[in-house]
Amino acid sequence: MSRYLSPRLAALDAYTPGEQPRDMQYIKLNTNESPFPPSPLVLEKVSEAEVGRLNLYPDPEATVLRQKLAALHGLKPENVFVSNGSDDILNFAFMAFCDENRGAAFADITYGFYPVYGDLYGIDCKVIPLKGDFTLDPTEYHGLGRMIVIANPNAPTGLTISEADIRGILESNPDNVVLIDEAYVDFGGKSVYPLVKEYDNLLVVQTYSKSRSMAGARLGFAFGCTELIRDLELIKYSTNPYNINRLTMIAGEAAIDSNDYFMDNVNKIIEAREYTASELRKLGFTVTDSKANFLFAKSDRIGGEELYLELKKRGILVRHFSKERIKEYNRITVGTMEQMEKFVAAVADILY
Amino acid sequence: MSRYLSPRLAALDAYTPGEQPRDMQYIKLNTNESPFPPSPLVLEKVSEAEVGRLNLYPDPEATVLRQKLAALHGLKPENVFVSNGSDDILNFAFMAFCDENRGAAFADITYGFYPVYGDLYGIDCKVIPLKGDFTLDPTEYHGLGRMIVIANPNAPTGLTISEADIRGILESNPDNVVLIDEAYVDFGGKSVYPLVKEYDNLLVVQTYSKSRSMAGARLGFAFGCTELIRDLELIKYSTNPYNINRLTMIAGEAAIDSNDYFMDNVNKIIEAREYTASELRKLGFTVTDSKANFLFAKSDRIGGEELYLELKKRGILVRHFSKERIKEYNRITVGTMEQMEKFVAAVADILY
Repeated sequence: MSRYLSPRLAALDAYTPGEQPRDMQYIKLNTNESPFPPSPLVLEKVSEAEVGRLNLYPDPEATVLRQKLAALHGLKPENVFVSNGSDDILNFAFMAFCDENRGAAFADITYGFYPVYGDLYGIDCKVIPLKGDFTLDPTEYHGLGRMIVIANPNAPTGLTISEADIRGILESNPDNVVLIDEAYVDFGGKSVYPLVKEYDNLLVVQTYSKSRSMAGARLGFAFGCTELIRDLELIKYSTNPYNINRLTMIAGEAAIDSNDYFMDNVNKIIEAREYTASELRKLGFTVTDSKANFLFAKSDRIGGEELYLELKKRGILVRHFSKERIKEYNRITVGTMEQMEKFVAAVADILY
Repeated sequence: MSRYLSPRLAALDAYTPGEQPRDMQYIKLNTNESPFPPSPLVLEKVSEAEVGRLNLYPDPEATVLRQKLAALHGLKPENVFVSNGSDDILNFAFMAFCDENRGAAFADITYGFYPVYGDLYGIDCKVIPLKGDFTLDPTEYHGLGRMIVIANPNAPTGLTISEADIRGILESNPDNVVLIDEAYVDFGGKSVYPLVKEYDNLLVVQTYSKSRSMAGARLGFAFGCTELIRDLELIKYSTNPYNINRLTMIAGEAAIDSNDYFMDNVNKIIEAREYTASELRKLGFTVTDSKANFLFAKSDRIGGEELYLELKKRGILVRHFSKERIKEYNRITVGTMEQMEKFVAAVADILY
């Protein structure tokens, strides 16, 4: 750091993205990308003619994209916020809804970015340990008087909580925002977006990065009551009004118009996940009941880091976290059936 | 706003982007876009095959893009930061280098976003009036003990300050960052990027939005000493690590590889600017000596707002600011020679 950096940021521990080594061609099962390309309609709409219009600013209101997202979900455009990836929205939510008097609360084992936002803005964060089996006790989130952030399905466990549990949390925290991070919801979870009509403290965040095969386009979206969405817009117009580029906006619109293509891919990924989970269990692994596009698994026969390194040697990348409570596990993104067969074969080869 | 919004943001007055009306086809001279499309190489490289790889995350380090920008400017990649538009970089700089003990300073008439960042982060901002002719007295920026932000050329005036003046400001503020916002530098200003080798408190910010015809792609870049760049990276990795999408990164690389195309366009715009300035002066306008891709002009025969409205009726959009000191002026983006001939004809028609 320079001597000009504000001292309040000196101890900041930034988020570490999954590794992107370039020494060889890997089977990449480490960053929860979709193994499938975007739909043919996306490829058609992001045309040379559109690239030729990059000299013009994008529509800062993302009018068409928000209309399409609203229509698909039975909501109004004013209930939809779009931004440069869902991380952008999480960031805005911490800025908008937390301060020195309003802290945040989230689980100990969840998306690693939540505590980073807390640190960045000097927010008091209550970290609530998951139970021994990594399930979340919703009653521990009742009446906290803080912004509550819950990934559902959770990462890296893939475990879900029920709509009833979320209602309980919303109702017992009427003066604070409850942010449900549904990045992985399309793979078997149940979205609570319809509840934004009932609860003005609910913010539901989703992304094009996983089920919609557009991690490289950077597009996240959120649903909430009109006032909550306006708050996020205030942050956007006070930081970076043109935060979604033209081509991503077009790709995002085309993806909604070819929704069936993506939901077909989701089904393929679910099938590959269930196959892989079953094979890992046969190999003696403990595997959580993931409803996401990844699995979270450990073996008594090999340490988490050792398995990660052995797989890497064999050209397969998975994600290992060094955090004490989960260091024997690996998070394995679910790719194509062919990739998962190779993964299972490699694991069997390492273990036996 | 919602009742959940932090009270510290309640009075925030966000930035207002230039209008984008859709009631008819306008000659758009209001948002300082280039009238020219990106280069043929950009169109070629942002290919269907690349759109088909949007399922993969972009390189968070933007390795190739930073190498190319560094090589073009005779610097090292570690002296280059890239982000989702230069607004993103300005935002990060206010976050990184200002706090309750370190304020900011900028001119009264300059890019309207600087005070928004100040408000957003609760930073004490010293606003220094430009002189009567809108020139900046560099000695007023000596020894301020604050982060100094100067647009060079300035917006909306197009006026420049010299490298010697900037050196004086850098040397008299050794404990604070001096940010030179060079969004418009390619149109006749002189960039101070070589000075980052001499001054560790200099941050130079540029953009692809103007001279490189990529406002719609969202790509800004900055030059500074290694430590300053690392500070900006710390903010990026603590907010949104994948903040540049794949296609923008590819477009940005291709634009560097076809730099001559863009510099040819810059020359066309300078020619059209000088033509337009000359014609406006013939029509009795006061026109600043702009070195940017816009002109800043007023007439004694018609008020600024009235001219803006009359031009809009005739299908030409320019930017009018209601701020007292400049409300008799309009900022006119320089388009193609053909567009500027139409603009001049419309102005003559309105006035005579």
